[in-house]
Amino acid sequence: MSEKLIGAAIFGQSGGPTAVINASAYGVIRAALDAEEITKVYGAANGIKGVLEDKLYVMDEEDPEELKLLLHTPSSALGSCRYKIADPEKDDTDYKRILEIFKKYNVRYFFYNGGNDSMDTCNKISRYMESVGYACRVMGVPKTIDNDLYGTDHCPGFGSAAKYIATSCMEINKDARVYDNGMITIVEIMGRHAGWLAGSASLATAFGSGPDLVYLPETDFDMDKFLADVDEVYKKNGKVLVAVSEGIHYADGSFVSEAKTSATDGFGHAQLGGLAAMLADIVKKHTGAKVRGIELSLLQRCGAHLASATDIEEARRSGEEAVLQAVKGVTGKMVAFERESVNGEYACKLTLLPLTEVANYEKKVPLSWINDTQNGMKQEFIDYVLPLIQGEPKLPLKHSLPRYARLKKVLAK
Amino acid sequence: MSEKLIGAAIFGQSGGPTAVINASAYGVIRAALDAEEITKVYGAANGIKGVLEDKLYVMDEEDPEELKLLLHTPSSALGSCRYKIADPEKDDTDYKRILEIFKKYNVRYFFYNGGNDSMDTCNKISRYMESVGYACRVMGVPKTIDNDLYGTDHCPGFGSAAKYIATSCMEINKDARVYDNGMITIVEIMGRHAGWLAGSASLATAFGSGPDLVYLPETDFDMDKFLADVDEVYKKNGKVLVAVSEGIHYADGSFVSEAKTSATDGFGHAQLGGLAAMLADIVKKHTGAKVRGIELSLLQRCGAHLASATDIEEARRSGEEAVLQAVKGVTGKMVAFERESVNGEYACKLTLLPLTEVANYEKKVPLSWINDTQNGMKQEFIDYVLPLIQGEPKLPLKHSLPRYARLKKVLAK
Repeated sequence: MSEKLIGAAIFGQSGGPTAVINASAYGVIRAALDAEEITKVYGAANGIKGVLEDKLYVMDEEDPEELKLLLHTPSSALGSCRYKIADPEKDDTDYKRILEIFKKYNVRYFFYNGGNDSMDTCNKISRYMESVGYACRVMGVPKTIDNDLYGTDHCPGFGSAAKYIATSCMEINKDARVYDNGMITIVEIMGRHAGWLAGSASLATAFGSGPDLVYLPETDFDMDKFLADVDEVYKKNGKVLVAVSEGIHYADGSFVSEAKTSATDGFGHAQLGGLAAMLADIVKKHTGAKVRGIELSLLQRCGAHLASATDIEEARRSGEEAVLQAVKGVTGKMVAFERESVNGEYACKLTLLPLTEVANYEKKVPLSWINDTQNGMKQEFIDYVLPLIQGEPKLPLKHSLPRYARLKKVLAK
Repeated sequence: MSEKLIGAAIFGQSGGPTAVINASAYGVIRAALDAEEITKVYGAANGIKGVLEDKLYVMDEEDPEELKLLLHTPSSALGSCRYKIADPEKDDTDYKRILEIFKKYNVRYFFYNGGNDSMDTCNKISRYMESVGYACRVMGVPKTIDNDLYGTDHCPGFGSAAKYIATSCMEINKDARVYDNGMITIVEIMGRHAGWLAGSASLATAFGSGPDLVYLPETDFDMDKFLADVDEVYKKNGKVLVAVSEGIHYADGSFVSEAKTSATDGFGHAQLGGLAAMLADIVKKHTGAKVRGIELSLLQRCGAHLASATDIEEARRSGEEAVLQAVKGVTGKMVAFERESVNGEYACKLTLLPLTEVANYEKKVPLSWINDTQNGMKQEFIDYVLPLIQGEPKLPLKHSLPRYARLKKVLAK
């Protein structure tokens, strides 16, 4: 047991928002407010930038009921950032400033919620504080819809996005089949380097009606093979639903979305619209069929109304656990998930990973979970994702519209 | 009281699907199966095309529990069409064929569910059957997310789409404000000629956080004024959320989405992506800010998971009413809604409108409900829409994904 460390805590949110990142915020903030070792709880405005700019909100001033609404409020309530911090060995300007702020508010606990880059930030701050002998416990809380964090079974945010994608694909698939003429629909799904989200579209197919074809960035994309795949389904059914990851790329590594192909615009003008519109145009020219491109866009990551209750609770627990462990003396760790089976039912226990191990490493979909023709998912993938989307949260509503948390955001002086 | 008319019924779905068109189908089919005057209930495959092609499904063969799932199944379960039927006075080929099919199956009741064009089809069939002395009662059931049907307070399908749009805009607005740098987001919403749907985005603003600016097709769009509006909000807040109807047009009537402007592509190449992508490009060039275009696409009309319980029940009731009235002797009418207030609470009673009055006439948003600067909605509009989105349906789920109706679709011989 480590000695008791008494002082304030700072919590920050980083990277792209998710439907449940604020559930983790609630887990951290509530547990920190309740911990007797923690004297004050600050929320950093826009992540580490709020620390650097001395823009901290006093969480002790918030109404507990409004804080609780964070469980169902999408996106980053405190604001986020994509600020890449330098290596402390190369440039310690930011770290000196962070230390100054930590000293000013007697901050002894730092909790950071984010993906790969954020865990890297967390790791660097942890190492720096240790190197200068400032007692501060630094903990990472995982977050990313992309589900690509290393060392954890999955990440909070992914399950809700997967549920949004699967449900939306079921609905789109119904809509795209109403007429008796041919129709091809292409749905573009987030995930620049890992195909967890695009693969989740196949849940719709497994449990009702969904995409006929799914393409992930884990394998090389081949336009001719893609068009042949579409042709085959189209000839058989007269309707095709395709799900593609935004990150699909050719064998040379270039993104399909960035390629200037003669099929789209021979003059090389910038394309308006994204990959879905571009592929729709190519497929239309190839087949002559009616083709529609749909981009799920921001909605897939902020669709709190369709969040997974499992995801919300795991997000909250991981935030809470970071505080409980830090108070006990743990530092330099990220809270992670380890899947277990309890009486044949899905369960997850929380574990701790050294930040040095998790930072800057991407976890991809195993190739063995992708079918042999590389245009769909195997049962192993379905079995992996399905437990993560379970459960319908009781969404706080007013007039049948979401009632989100309204924070006062009182600035610390 | 008319004399009892004994015979079979045909029900058809027409036009673009909605989240609740199958709730109307359930209302018609259930009531028709229960009516003793109706000997058999057929569902036409792809609307009137199924009648012309003698492709009728026997609804009596369906499992009643599966039929009930139609209440929560989006899109047209029997298939739809956009078939424009000729004037019987000019070309009666189709009508002769319809009469032939009606005689073959002893069809004495015809129920057609759709928007303006479908009510026109309904009207023409009604007139033709009368002119040739074939006893058949023809009833229209209203449907359109566009809410532009004449003579009815509102249309089934609109409330659910409005709820999807308002909720999604609340979520997008949260997501689009997480970073501390400038950001402009443009959301494209359906509605070619009437702005009921785009206007509904302002519910998000009225009850939480939503678009700063809303543009409807009821007024002429002016690109310079639009850019000035965006500038003003951007300078003030650093963030702008804009909702635009796909049908916005210049003073000369040309759609903005179809215009070839020098700001987008001086060579006049076909634009990939729709209006949102095009406006995003123009705004980006004008402001230099980060701009994102989002098209709600099909999801706004098929989002059954976010349907309004009020809308589902009204859709069901309007289908049921069509059958109950037809059995009583009514023909050549569309079921419509008349809003009333019962103890200060919203209520709606069903009325009947002559098909001749309703066909081919579009109802637009009153100009007095649009603000003076023509970039937002007045309270009257909010008060009108709000009751229509109320209530959360108990969605049948399996593994936390929608469980839609699975019909056998046994073809009549």
